[in-house]
Amino acid sequence: MNLMLFEPSAVAAGSPVRLSAAQTAHLRGVLRVAPGDTVRVGVIDGPTGTGTVASVADEGIELVCAFDGEVPERPRVDLLLAVPRPKVMRRLWAHLAALGVGRVILTNAEKVERDYFGSHALREDVFRPLLVEGLEQARDTRLPVVSIHKRFKVLVEDDLDTLAGGAARIVAHPDSARGGAATFASALAGVGASERALVAVGPEGGWNDFELSLLEAHGFARAGIGPRTLTTTTACIAILALVHDGLRHRAAGAARRE
Amino acid sequence: MNLMLFEPSAVAAGSPVRLSAAQTAHLRGVLRVAPGDTVRVGVIDGPTGTGTVASVADEGIELVCAFDGEVPERPRVDLLLAVPRPKVMRRLWAHLAALGVGRVILTNAEKVERDYFGSHALREDVFRPLLVEGLEQARDTRLPVVSIHKRFKVLVEDDLDTLAGGAARIVAHPDSARGGAATFASALAGVGASERALVAVGPEGGWNDFELSLLEAHGFARAGIGPRTLTTTTACIAILALVHDGLRHRAAGAARRE
Repeated sequence: MNLMLFEPSAVAAGSPVRLSAAQTAHLRGVLRVAPGDTVRVGVIDGPTGTGTVASVADEGIELVCAFDGEVPERPRVDLLLAVPRPKVMRRLWAHLAALGVGRVILTNAEKVERDYFGSHALREDVFRPLLVEGLEQARDTRLPVVSIHKRFKVLVEDDLDTLAGGAARIVAHPDSARGGAATFASALAGVGASERALVAVGPEGGWNDFELSLLEAHGFARAGIGPRTLTTTTACIAILALVHDGLRHRAAGAARRE
Repeated sequence: MNLMLFEPSAVAAGSPVRLSAAQTAHLRGVLRVAPGDTVRVGVIDGPTGTGTVASVADEGIELVCAFDGEVPERPRVDLLLAVPRPKVMRRLWAHLAALGVGRVILTNAEKVERDYFGSHALREDVFRPLLVEGLEQARDTRLPVVSIHKRFKVLVEDDLDTLAGGAARIVAHPDSARGGAATFASALAGVGASERALVAVGPEGGWNDFELSLLEAHGFARAGIGPRTLTTTTACIAILALVHDGLRHRAAGAARRE
């Protein structure tokens, strides 16, 4: 944990913040804080700041917090993801939040098993702490907005413009053995320096032809990360890194041209 | 599993290959093969090919294999990694092999705990099957060559030229809050289309000043993936994806110029 995040409701102006049991255990066991020590803090979807340890008691630790930092910019990448196996999904949440995503849009596909939608890994009380863990790792406060869409066609045709209108759209698709798919850098070449990107990642068996056609008909350009077939976890991390890097590159290029 | 890999010793010319218990279970339980079905096969560090199911019996499955595919090119990226916590290391092996690394060079750093070197995750009988799992996922046969170097200074000063001579050297280092570190694309800008890259990834607490200076004195250029602090797993996957993408980009650019 590189930043300790609080729910907005836990932070009342002027009052010290009473830590949760897990937060207390971390400050005691890992950071071994004493009164007067400071730690980086933040409010979910709010500013960062500094917390000063006011007291360390058996009942818990109290921090006096000054939230005088900036509210981080919302990550400029959104992810449209075919729901993976529950065990995979559960481990993926923290990676996604650490890498930075504005929205996680979960959906169905032919190769998604129907019962995945009933899994614990899609329950907000399960995934929210895992997202917070990722934000605390990356020193971010902007909680990804998660939505679940069982009907892929309705999502793509009717809902995506509201959820992620104006974003550059890319669908990750493995290159054929002969190569051929565009790289993410080239797929992002036309994107403005401050625009957002929405990247679609399919199930491990891939999108079927109908799904891929529907995405392409709605503005998604194909991009590949090479000929290797990756698991959902490896692929999501690799793809988010490439899209963020592509956007940073665009922003740096635009700054140089000014 | 997208390719079933065999040890060279298990493949005798002309004889059918008798599968291991795990391979039998996969073909039976997941692929539900019957005699006459074909599956993709490969020999570790050898060619790929096609296996035809000869018999399915309680004692196991026999495959008649034709290893008539190419031997894949060794991945052009090598990884120098400060040994992470055993639990993290154990889960990382398959990701590394799936993304493609020629060598994994494990080493010490100030922020590596000494007992990590005694962990099960660094025993070949533990990590080899995990590497094979990653290769089977990515349809590769080239097993990463793993070496363990407890003395960081000796490794960098004396051994690296033998292990990874001629490779472009990059050390991943988090950007400062103000940005500033080069991107991987710019760090790879001078690399020839067929050259190799060696990328160094530090412990979660970072390289210390001595370690960073020593790496820089031995030709490592700094590159960053942005201001976010990532865990070793997220960082390794992100960095390997960026370096592979940068090299593919160089190769594609060189091909266009011909």
